[in-house]
Amino acid sequence: MSEEKKPIYYADYLQLDRLLSAQAPESERLGRPAHDELLFIIVHQAYELWFKQILHELALVDGIFANANVDDRDIGRAVAALQRIERILKLVIGQLDVLETMTPQDFLEFRDLLFPSSGFQSLQFRLIEIGLGLRRGDRVTPDDKPYDSRLNETDRARVQAAEAVPSLSDRIEVWLGRTPFVEIGGYRFQESYRAAVTDMLARDAAILRDNPTIGAMEREAGLAGLEAAQERFEAIYDEARHAALVEQGAWRFSLGALQAALFVTLYRDEPVLQLPFRLLSLLMDIDETMTAWRYRHALMAQRMIGRKLGTGGSSGHDYLSEAAKRYRVFGDLFALSTFLIPRSALPPLPDELRRAMGYGYAAPKD
Amino acid sequence: MSEEKKPIYYADYLQLDRLLSAQAPESERLGRPAHDELLFIIVHQAYELWFKQILHELALVDGIFANANVDDRDIGRAVAALQRIERILKLVIGQLDVLETMTPQDFLEFRDLLFPSSGFQSLQFRLIEIGLGLRRGDRVTPDDKPYDSRLNETDRARVQAAEAVPSLSDRIEVWLGRTPFVEIGGYRFQESYRAAVTDMLARDAAILRDNPTIGAMEREAGLAGLEAAQERFEAIYDEARHAALVEQGAWRFSLGALQAALFVTLYRDEPVLQLPFRLLSLLMDIDETMTAWRYRHALMAQRMIGRKLGTGGSSGHDYLSEAAKRYRVFGDLFALSTFLIPRSALPPLPDELRRAMGYGYAAPKD
Amino acid sequence: MSEEKKPIYYADYLQLDRLLSAQAPESERLGRPAHDELLFIIVHQAYELWFKQILHELALVDGIFANANVDDRDIGRAVAALQRIERILKLVIGQLDVLETMTPQDFLEFRDLLFPSSGFQSLQFRLIEIGLGLRRGDRVTPDDKPYDSRLNETDRARVQAAEAVPSLSDRIEVWLGRTPFVEIGGYRFQESYRAAVTDMLARDAAILRDNPTIGAMEREAGLAGLEAAQERFEAIYDEARHAALVEQGAWRFSLGALQAALFVTLYRDEPVLQLPFRLLSLLMDIDETMTAWRYRHALMAQRMIGRKLGTGGSSGHDYLSEAAKRYRVFGDLFALSTFLIPRSALPPLPDELRRAMGYGYAAPKD
Amino acid sequence: MSEEKKPIYYADYLQLDRLLSAQAPESERLGRPAHDELLFIIVHQAYELWFKQILHELALVDGIFANANVDDRDIGRAVAALQRIERILKLVIGQLDVLETMTPQDFLEFRDLLFPSSGFQSLQFRLIEIGLGLRRGDRVTPDDKPYDSRLNETDRARVQAAEAVPSLSDRIEVWLGRTPFVEIGGYRFQESYRAAVTDMLARDAAILRDNPTIGAMEREAGLAGLEAAQERFEAIYDEARHAALVEQGAWRFSLGALQAALFVTLYRDEPVLQLPFRLLSLLMDIDETMTAWRYRHALMAQRMIGRKLGTGGSSGHDYLSEAAKRYRVFGDLFALSTFLIPRSALPPLPDELRRAMGYGYAAPKD
Repeated sequence: MSEEKKPIYYADYLQLDRLLSAQAPESERLGRPAHDELLFIIVHQAYELWFKQILHELALVDGIFANANVDDRDIGRAVAALQRIERILKLVIGQLDVLETMTPQDFLEFRDLLFPSSGFQSLQFRLIEIGLGLRRGDRVTPDDKPYDSRLNETDRARVQAAEAVPSLSDRIEVWLGRTPFVEIGGYRFQESYRAAVTDMLARDAAILRDNPTIGAMEREAGLAGLEAAQERFEAIYDEARHAALVEQGAWRFSLGALQAALFVTLYRDEPVLQLPFRLLSLLMDIDETMTAWRYRHALMAQRMIGRKLGTGGSSGHDYLSEAAKRYRVFGDLFALSTFLIPRSALPPLPDELRRAMGYGYAAPKD
Repeated sequence: MSEEKKPIYYADYLQLDRLLSAQAPESERLGRPAHDELLFIIVHQAYELWFKQILHELALVDGIFANANVDDRDIGRAVAALQRIERILKLVIGQLDVLETMTPQDFLEFRDLLFPSSGFQSLQFRLIEIGLGLRRGDRVTPDDKPYDSRLNETDRARVQAAEAVPSLSDRIEVWLGRTPFVEIGGYRFQESYRAAVTDMLARDAAILRDNPTIGAMEREAGLAGLEAAQERFEAIYDEARHAALVEQGAWRFSLGALQAALFVTLYRDEPVLQLPFRLLSLLMDIDETMTAWRYRHALMAQRMIGRKLGTGGSSGHDYLSEAAKRYRVFGDLFALSTFLIPRSALPPLPDELRRAMGYGYAAPKD
Repeated sequence: MSEEKKPIYYADYLQLDRLLSAQAPESERLGRPAHDELLFIIVHQAYELWFKQILHELALVDGIFANANVDDRDIGRAVAALQRIERILKLVIGQLDVLETMTPQDFLEFRDLLFPSSGFQSLQFRLIEIGLGLRRGDRVTPDDKPYDSRLNETDRARVQAAEAVPSLSDRIEVWLGRTPFVEIGGYRFQESYRAAVTDMLARDAAILRDNPTIGAMEREAGLAGLEAAQERFEAIYDEARHAALVEQGAWRFSLGALQAALFVTLYRDEPVLQLPFRLLSLLMDIDETMTAWRYRHALMAQRMIGRKLGTGGSSGHDYLSEAAKRYRVFGDLFALSTFLIPRSALPPLPDELRRAMGYGYAAPKD
Repeated sequence: MSEEKKPIYYADYLQLDRLLSAQAPESERLGRPAHDELLFIIVHQAYELWFKQILHELALVDGIFANANVDDRDIGRAVAALQRIERILKLVIGQLDVLETMTPQDFLEFRDLLFPSSGFQSLQFRLIEIGLGLRRGDRVTPDDKPYDSRLNETDRARVQAAEAVPSLSDRIEVWLGRTPFVEIGGYRFQESYRAAVTDMLARDAAILRDNPTIGAMEREAGLAGLEAAQERFEAIYDEARHAALVEQGAWRFSLGALQAALFVTLYRDEPVLQLPFRLLSLLMDIDETMTAWRYRHALMAQRMIGRKLGTGGSSGHDYLSEAAKRYRVFGDLFALSTFLIPRSALPPLPDELRRAMGYGYAAPKD
């Protein structure tokens, strides 16, 4: 421990004087204090503290994948950072349990005093969404104005600056696109794999046609679903089709990135793929937790505010379910699970490839 | 402790021989064991154990509110039972975190072996939904067949028998409708309260019209919402309007029940109303937790299965968001928060009423 | 909504400029930034924000019970505030899951820079402990100096001022001591109840003596335990014995408070006792959650720091387990469960008493 | 999907007839039903279901590490299984929140009927403890009889059989002992590392001696702790000292295993060490979660049962805190954090070693 520097005091280190004097309830300023306004302030301040941490971790991950050549040593750090983000998101969802100890009527005591401020104005939350890869065009805007119209100029500028640089989704897409394996003797893999998937989808279609326990509507929906699936799958191997589906929003990642993600998922037990697989899983965890949070948040809003001003209630629900569908940044990774086949049915990898994916010190076992 | 009876052994008491021999993975039966199938079985068995407990608590609550005259001593027990149900629901949502340690590909190893069995076939879950008050007509059926068509005859019969008897929602509606207070000198309360709410809604409309920061679409949506709100509110005092809105599904509870629920919520600090208020809150908690669970479950399904067979993916999402909106059993209670006014603005209660709502031993304080 | 006042902006309302600029990692100041120091700061700042909220709720509860005459309307609010405190404590325990994403080695990058600051210096945490009722004498001091010797003068002064005023435990003790019921015809209750408990303890002793499956040591320990229990129980009815046991620290509450707490617990179904019962339960919940938190915190410390400097490791463990035993503020309430008897065996209450405990509008049912 | 086999029904697949008919409350059998006994049964049955799953995962991990030569592909599976065990443990701790909705008095309605059965008789829980590596000698026995004296003969036999075969701790020790790296040019590493640690401990001692803010007792305790630490550290490089400390229980793992664990922890960023590092972390997580669970369980027991029969209360606390200290299976891994030094201070690895720890396809970056 560094003897030279003067001893540090807990409260100074954490700047508690600033931190704990930054709660100024409007209801008190206006001389009719509402007990629960402090809770409202503190919950949101806690959110913002955690958002800062999430942005700090996203910056680390971005720094790692911004490299043209990602050092394997760094993938472990990226995975740890994403793991931390996921834990933080789970934690802040829990903060809703505390906020819900405030009843709608207690909220009424000060709610109108805060107008028109709103959680939609959280710059940091927007930066997290953008940093992950949510694009302006993906957003559902409840009214006819751009989503950032409620932000002040400074914040709007920062949001737009963030939209102008590559997101985590962009970084991952490029990084996946660089995965060497898929090419090395990979073509043989592709062929056999395509056959396997096509069989699987055909078998599923057969069941839908032949099975009496399935209703007509369900059958049609199912068959349509399978056709669309086949089409999306083919698009993984065909530039033109792929481009068309990207146009329609059915795929977001490049052809190479999709192939690599599929490869990583299928052969995740290979030493060199184990961390990339965790990375992809964590991206889905984060996506899913963000969605679950938006949903819980909307449920609470409805309960707190009821149905007026369309801030909650049914219109809120429509907004939300729309959002739930469209705010999925890594939807491609979820969609890929449509094309998985059982480990047991996986085409074996060529030996030289498996060797390349093992550790220098060890020969691959068969 | 009863000396006479022979000593009990933990494993016998819990019938562990039966319990722990009731896991028979299909993949093992068919000679190609899949490690993760046991997890799949155990998660679902744990669900079913907890469902049994929930039904046990629902039966207790039903027994209490089935009485023409609910003993105040029993309301505390009902509240405790509902509190337990809510905790159990929170716990079983957590089981998804464990299930999600199974990857889509691991699931594939045995998924097809289980066809066409499905969680939709859980009799106990259906009985919980029905017991709470979900009606056949409220359900979203993904195909053209009734939701219970996938159940076997015995189970279908039990589901239909359950649908034929009063649900918790029905019991609560009747019990609320019997609340004495609303009448005692209540008319004066109603009048003043109606005025207060009408003012509030008018003020909100004014803001929508006058505030520049609000977009046109948002303004129209908001004003429409306020009109609908005013209409729903008026319907609480008008048999004919109420009947019409029930017809349209805008209200479910009777006029008297809605008035009572509003009264309990507004004057919840009165000793006699404190437990009824907790009761109503717990009904909303349970409703909300059921919804959140359906949602998390659908997210997981999409991740596990991808988009084929319409079991997950977007169509699953539509189903789910529809369900999220329509499976709300106690939606009336959520909707009432639209009509709350701040405690500080509450019309005072007549003294004789407050006295009636205090304890015998104590005079009400003013 | 108040049209007059100028519109509020989210970031201004939450003072995000101050809040989000209050993180100054030492490692950055010294020019060798450690990525994880920000997490360390933010976790602790989030703790302090929540501590402020807990103190806000404790103040509300204190204000209520400081009254010579507690309005029944307020007990519901006190229960709600304690419920909120319990939820907050559960939440902040969860923050450890996030902190544990920092590995011991990552902590090492900046740990020594913080010397000698320590969580033990959290003024607000001390104020919470004191506010609940932890007394200076209850504390385990790892070294030969008073527990507040690590605080600076200002903080030490505030800690000592807090120790000088009544705690929640004191307030509750007085309030319980005032419970009217125990006296009203209560003597008859006391007698029959004493007999019932004495029988129960005797029966337990018989089992210990006669049961072959019980080991000698266990038998002696058990019998000794029963004797001590009988003694503690008798002390509830005997000033002199009670005073002696308070001296020894076996009881903390006054005779009257203990009797009342027992009465509330036994007859909690009576309407007038339902909220007081929840109140007592919540005090135990809070006590238990504080203890569980101290324990999880110590486990984490040991993992982070290992065994040196006695800050964790075995000596930490001893400190902690001592603390776990002695920091129990409402230990009396836990101890009372020793003297409960089954509802079915409860002596019935005299009618006039039950009437007094019902609501004015309703006659008690038999 | 396999068309040939007959369709599977959810209830048959899960054997719900057996599962849901395996709850037989004693209180009902004896004709005085206690509502909450079902909860008690179901909570414990849910525990046992999850225990079965944990044992299933432990078997998988054991199978992997039983190999003389662990395939790198399998380490990912072992990590996934341990991750799952950890999630399950977190989940079942949550079950206590549900059990705590039962009040001590409700428990009394049936508690005596269960005598002398006890959770201590859970065979599966014992098998989990043993499987992880808890040794008979590590156990704290509350009475003078062996811990398994309460089990019936069959269960006792199974417990003793389990104690006779290698535990996970044994497997990991052997596997770590085989780690190749530590030797390759490793001696140079050892020397520089020893120096670094010895410096660090010396610096810490200096602070303890020179710092005025530290109390005398704390100083002595700290210096003693440092000496012990130095001794334990030296023992990692000295067969004789190591043997002596194993004798005293200060270390459990072999010299080679300790060196390897330290090496893995220090150089965890090297691709080949990332999964082994997660493995070691998960072992600590599991150890910690088991401990936290024992603790929460004891707190609940005390609350439920109070202080009689020594099953809870203070004696229970002593037992527990003893257990908390001694039931630590992977205590060595926690102890190692005492000897970590900051990444920045780590001696660099020889190039040929780093190459050996990279992937075949990639040259290490410097």
